[in-house]
Amino acid sequence: MCMSKGLVVLAYSGGLDTSCILLWLKEQGYDVIAFLVTPRFTVFIEDLRSEFVQEFIWPAVQANAVYEDRYLLGTSIARPCIARRQVQIARQERAQYVSHGATGKGNDQVRFELTCYALYPQVQIIAPWRIPEFYSRFRGRKDLMEYAEKHGIPVPVTPKAPWSMDANLMHISYESGILENPKNHAPSDLYQMTKNPEDSPSEPDVLEIDFAKGVPVRVTHVKEGTSKDTPLELFCYLNEIGGKHGVGRIDIVENRFIGMKSRGIYETPGGTILLHAHLDIETFTMDREVRKIKQSLGIKFSELIYNGFWYSPECEFVRHCIDKSQENVEGRVQLSVFKGQVYILGRESPKSLYNEELVSMDVQGDYDPCDASGFIKINAVRLREHNRLQGAAQKTL
Amino acid sequence: MCMSKGLVVLAYSGGLDTSCILLWLKEQGYDVIAFLVTPRFTVFIEDLRSEFVQEFIWPAVQANAVYEDRYLLGTSIARPCIARRQVQIARQERAQYVSHGATGKGNDQVRFELTCYALYPQVQIIAPWRIPEFYSRFRGRKDLMEYAEKHGIPVPVTPKAPWSMDANLMHISYESGILENPKNHAPSDLYQMTKNPEDSPSEPDVLEIDFAKGVPVRVTHVKEGTSKDTPLELFCYLNEIGGKHGVGRIDIVENRFIGMKSRGIYETPGGTILLHAHLDIETFTMDREVRKIKQSLGIKFSELIYNGFWYSPECEFVRHCIDKSQENVEGRVQLSVFKGQVYILGRESPKSLYNEELVSMDVQGDYDPCDASGFIKINAVRLREHNRLQGAAQKTL
Amino acid sequence: MCMSKGLVVLAYSGGLDTSCILLWLKEQGYDVIAFLVTPRFTVFIEDLRSEFVQEFIWPAVQANAVYEDRYLLGTSIARPCIARRQVQIARQERAQYVSHGATGKGNDQVRFELTCYALYPQVQIIAPWRIPEFYSRFRGRKDLMEYAEKHGIPVPVTPKAPWSMDANLMHISYESGILENPKNHAPSDLYQMTKNPEDSPSEPDVLEIDFAKGVPVRVTHVKEGTSKDTPLELFCYLNEIGGKHGVGRIDIVENRFIGMKSRGIYETPGGTILLHAHLDIETFTMDREVRKIKQSLGIKFSELIYNGFWYSPECEFVRHCIDKSQENVEGRVQLSVFKGQVYILGRESPKSLYNEELVSMDVQGDYDPCDASGFIKINAVRLREHNRLQGAAQKTL
Amino acid sequence: MCMSKGLVVLAYSGGLDTSCILLWLKEQGYDVIAFLVTPRFTVFIEDLRSEFVQEFIWPAVQANAVYEDRYLLGTSIARPCIARRQVQIARQERAQYVSHGATGKGNDQVRFELTCYALYPQVQIIAPWRIPEFYSRFRGRKDLMEYAEKHGIPVPVTPKAPWSMDANLMHISYESGILENPKNHAPSDLYQMTKNPEDSPSEPDVLEIDFAKGVPVRVTHVKEGTSKDTPLELFCYLNEIGGKHGVGRIDIVENRFIGMKSRGIYETPGGTILLHAHLDIETFTMDREVRKIKQSLGIKFSELIYNGFWYSPECEFVRHCIDKSQENVEGRVQLSVFKGQVYILGRESPKSLYNEELVSMDVQGDYDPCDASGFIKINAVRLREHNRLQGAAQKTL
Repeated sequence: MCMSKGLVVLAYSGGLDTSCILLWLKEQGYDVIAFLVTPRFTVFIEDLRSEFVQEFIWPAVQANAVYEDRYLLGTSIARPCIARRQVQIARQERAQYVSHGATGKGNDQVRFELTCYALYPQVQIIAPWRIPEFYSRFRGRKDLMEYAEKHGIPVPVTPKAPWSMDANLMHISYESGILENPKNHAPSDLYQMTKNPEDSPSEPDVLEIDFAKGVPVRVTHVKEGTSKDTPLELFCYLNEIGGKHGVGRIDIVENRFIGMKSRGIYETPGGTILLHAHLDIETFTMDREVRKIKQSLGIKFSELIYNGFWYSPECEFVRHCIDKSQENVEGRVQLSVFKGQVYILGRESPKSLYNEELVSMDVQGDYDPCDASGFIKINAVRLREHNRLQGAAQKTL
Repeated sequence: MCMSKGLVVLAYSGGLDTSCILLWLKEQGYDVIAFLVTPRFTVFIEDLRSEFVQEFIWPAVQANAVYEDRYLLGTSIARPCIARRQVQIARQERAQYVSHGATGKGNDQVRFELTCYALYPQVQIIAPWRIPEFYSRFRGRKDLMEYAEKHGIPVPVTPKAPWSMDANLMHISYESGILENPKNHAPSDLYQMTKNPEDSPSEPDVLEIDFAKGVPVRVTHVKEGTSKDTPLELFCYLNEIGGKHGVGRIDIVENRFIGMKSRGIYETPGGTILLHAHLDIETFTMDREVRKIKQSLGIKFSELIYNGFWYSPECEFVRHCIDKSQENVEGRVQLSVFKGQVYILGRESPKSLYNEELVSMDVQGDYDPCDASGFIKINAVRLREHNRLQGAAQKTL
Repeated sequence: MCMSKGLVVLAYSGGLDTSCILLWLKEQGYDVIAFLVTPRFTVFIEDLRSEFVQEFIWPAVQANAVYEDRYLLGTSIARPCIARRQVQIARQERAQYVSHGATGKGNDQVRFELTCYALYPQVQIIAPWRIPEFYSRFRGRKDLMEYAEKHGIPVPVTPKAPWSMDANLMHISYESGILENPKNHAPSDLYQMTKNPEDSPSEPDVLEIDFAKGVPVRVTHVKEGTSKDTPLELFCYLNEIGGKHGVGRIDIVENRFIGMKSRGIYETPGGTILLHAHLDIETFTMDREVRKIKQSLGIKFSELIYNGFWYSPECEFVRHCIDKSQENVEGRVQLSVFKGQVYILGRESPKSLYNEELVSMDVQGDYDPCDASGFIKINAVRLREHNRLQGAAQKTL
Repeated sequence: MCMSKGLVVLAYSGGLDTSCILLWLKEQGYDVIAFLVTPRFTVFIEDLRSEFVQEFIWPAVQANAVYEDRYLLGTSIARPCIARRQVQIARQERAQYVSHGATGKGNDQVRFELTCYALYPQVQIIAPWRIPEFYSRFRGRKDLMEYAEKHGIPVPVTPKAPWSMDANLMHISYESGILENPKNHAPSDLYQMTKNPEDSPSEPDVLEIDFAKGVPVRVTHVKEGTSKDTPLELFCYLNEIGGKHGVGRIDIVENRFIGMKSRGIYETPGGTILLHAHLDIETFTMDREVRKIKQSLGIKFSELIYNGFWYSPECEFVRHCIDKSQENVEGRVQLSVFKGQVYILGRESPKSLYNEELVSMDVQGDYDPCDASGFIKINAVRLREHNRLQGAAQKTL
């Protein structure tokens, strides 16, 4: 009878929260399209896995993207991929609204919404967990359960784990609940993608990974002789091998974009293997000084991804530059995966800047050791001046 | 009968090369003081281990010093420590010369000599492996052996390993010989400080490391209840535990300061444990933005150390800044060491910036989720402008 | 009769806006303390000029603080100085509220409020220009004028300039109104601190500025022999000389923290002279590599100041590091001020790292030119390798 | 009769030094090709001006290339241009050697030779001022004069200026001699490209400069209506106007790559105008965060150019990235040139990111001021936490 307030595209996970949000949005008078990334049951069922690997994970591999020295950005990278599709649907369906179930204290709200604003500046965003009418009505899981039951939404029967979890093709993250105390150990039954290294096989698997332009193009299991060479299969296979050997578990405290510290536990099996392999082939084929500049661009890139700026002029610029740096990052890395670790065993490349003869201790190569004397002495000019002027020799000694 | 050409302080390792150099310097007419860091038999026998840990390793720990994302700088850090002492002896003994056995293609010659010039600008350096008379006379190990035998220098009876090795308290490095081919795997009998993870214990050891001002002040074995709290003992204990579990092995290609790529294999058991633990307690206690600035100073510091500039105005400046950043890096990290890996289990600190109530998903804390909307929208101003001007929405989608 | 809503400390400029805000706050039921930085007539009359020079301008001089390569940050630096005092008064008077007249699109609101939150986390901020009840009631200058007249607030009789202006000891900024069109020239009668260079004296003034630890400690007019040596007098004198010669005018478009570009016209006479002089004495006395690191810290510092983070952990850290870098920045710079320009004429310092003998083309000094060959050849190792592997020589040529 | 030692391509300036070197090389038994950039009289007469402007000056303009905050790199940029041509001739003439007259203490030797090695790795370089036989034979100008006279080389009849000078299309540098004392003022008759501002016109010239992709494509004299639009003419015209008004004079102490400080006086009239104009149009059209990243790349680029690494993998990479950043740097800047200064008057661009409505103080535009409250509060989260944990409020106040 009453007019619709408008059409909302909701990023729907199929879980309790977004199920209630879906209903609540309808209650508020909106028409809702549920956009489901992980398939279950409603309107837009999407498999974004291939584009996620190629357009999001691969650039992160090229960048050696790691936030605050440890976090491989599995959640952060997934958000713009999902939100981009959500916005495409919104445009296509002429929806003025998008909505999501991210909380008001987290990073994901920022990542979703910056992507939406960047790609669809006119869009309006409904974030129920930041709307007082919503969050004061649903003060905890119990309220949501009751609401769901009352409206015939299927509710989870298994008791909820005392933490929250977010899974995608690249990783699973665990946080909040009992993990909020940063001193508490993660329970051993928490991990779902990786085996406990204590229970993992007592023999390594040895893999060869071939790279071209800084991305993996083939993975071969040396012993078994099997190989994968499409992006999605390749990445899934690395997840499988990494998971089998318990690779890629971390327990960290990190700094959220909104200014608070949070504790997160992550498992990123395939991504961790690729980080090791890419670092190796990159250093093998990239000039030292290019590497330094690219390293700082990679740090910047990681921070941008974490903060939700995948779709921003600066991130596009940095991605372009990093991509350019990868032109010669080509070759094969051999590595062993075992008990939570990745061990580089050797590497080869047609584009290597490694010159065995030049570096050899047994052969002189095209190198005159006398040059090193001049090199050192000129590098010492500044240091000797500094010493002279400090009159510091005696003091220092 | 003939006049001495002058007095040389030689950094003497006790091995074949520096034994021959010692003799050769005498042949050339110099008086020689052999300065032996690892004690064997001659004039200046030095134990620099305590000062090495406190004055060199600790600043590296504070900095999370890692060269090119992987190398923990075990050799690089040791050089200025040794050269500083060598120069002190030279000054004290009024020697005009110092000498060393480093090759003409490596980094160590630079590290030794820059330290010498920085602390003793008038010194003259004799680097036999860069002197044609020397290196064309001794073209290989065989020449050195013959020379040694002829002059009654005790020569090693065991066959030389087909690689070269450099050991100190922090790590052992292996390079050259059969390792020069970057595709060759490291032989399994190469490592001397760490057990092969395949043979390491099938039970983890759990440690607690207490930090103050960014350096470890106590290590406790949780189960055994034992603890170490002097720098040297503490570091040796971490080496022992790390070594027992095969922690800290890497096989990398790196970029030398003199412009060539080289392949090195390193094992740094205690240093690796400390890197993990320090990263954790630092992020827990340090403001996000301070951390970012400090991270880039740490990368600079690592590069300076690698290149031999420990004693330089810029390195002193950076060390000072990093030290300042560590004022509140205090607290306890619990971790498990197992099969080549270090797993952080939890952390606590009286100076943590982690606010459990603020971050909690269950409690609101002193935080209004509505603020996040404004935060996101203002962050999107630029992005929306960019989109508007690119007219790019359609194209991007 | 009715209860007060609480006590507000208002940063009061004496102008129309804050006069109306004062009244409006009272209307809303607050008690108000007007905190007047530039003295006119009410409760807290403050002269913060000395502390502004020493605690705010001097660190900016040490840093060569310039935002986006051009803006000397005159407004940005003043905000934390004012807000700090405002917060002190609020604490002292047990006021729960502070208020200001900054607009909702500008940087100043951020600078004021971040300072307040940093120093008085429990404070509540009333920003009328962001409160719909206020800004929809006062839609323009006319509404404010009527309100003022109605309530007997003295209103300006002179017609308002068609731009807005903000003045402090360091500079005057002009923006908005007719300046909002970035193509429009600034009217010639806009500037108040500096003479038009076309009308300025046709003879330069030559000054000597003495620095210690990177800050000016004395300015001497060479011809007149007069000198100033307290911070406030010294800085005012430089403003006078700079103003007389039309120094320090810029017309720029800059990027605000809130994400939009704005056009601003600034005049910073004394600050511009100091920037030139400090750059000169700094390069003269500071090691090259320290300078590089310090330069990037200075850029970071400038950005932090601009964005309002003077009181933040990272800004305190950076200030500390920059201050450390200035230990030896000492000496005398001679310069000429003429027709809008500052010309460095010469410099001297007891702590200079300049070595006239070493650099001389007529004397060899303690320098062997042969060393340069080795230096160059080693620096070329990478370049030759790159060429070899690109097979690029022919192509490049 | 006797065999030639080989063929040398000498970078020949036509001056006393390289004339003597030419002769001396012949004496030593080499065949010599003199490669003269500024035309006078011998074999290869080259006009590289057009390619110098387009391939070297333009990228520097895009980068806002300035070394150590002040030096516009006029000499540094010219060296790779000259050496590249020299190497082309050497290859073409099958010469194994190149030679130059740069001194052993300067930067130019490095810039020449790194370019040669990068583009012609097999080349051998003869640098007489680093060869003891040469420099101990010619200990000063007098020795060179005698040698020249004896061999019938025309020698300069005018007394040499008591400083040395290097001129090219972009700038003239002056150094050494009486300028080596950093306290000495530059004589007023030193400058050759720019008028003394005291004697320059008392009326400004107003120019419009149009940019596309970050390089100037047209200059128009507003009053006279004349314009230039080929790179060479345009740049020469800016030199003319800048020179007429005394623009671009600096007196600095700088840090040479070989580790010593030197004093240099430079005049760069056209380059200085372009630096101001490009900075303006760039900020007008480039996103804030892209600008930040690009600024640091520009600093890196400047350092690489200064140190002689124009032809290096890292410089090529950085040039590529900077070029990419310039895609939208397009528009028109109006500026006035007067008495040594460049004043920006206004700017316009079809690609501007400046949004007059958004920034206006009179119009709300697509902006809700309430959002700023949330933005500020979230930015304050960290600061309030820091305060809380420092318990520092009281102390700070």
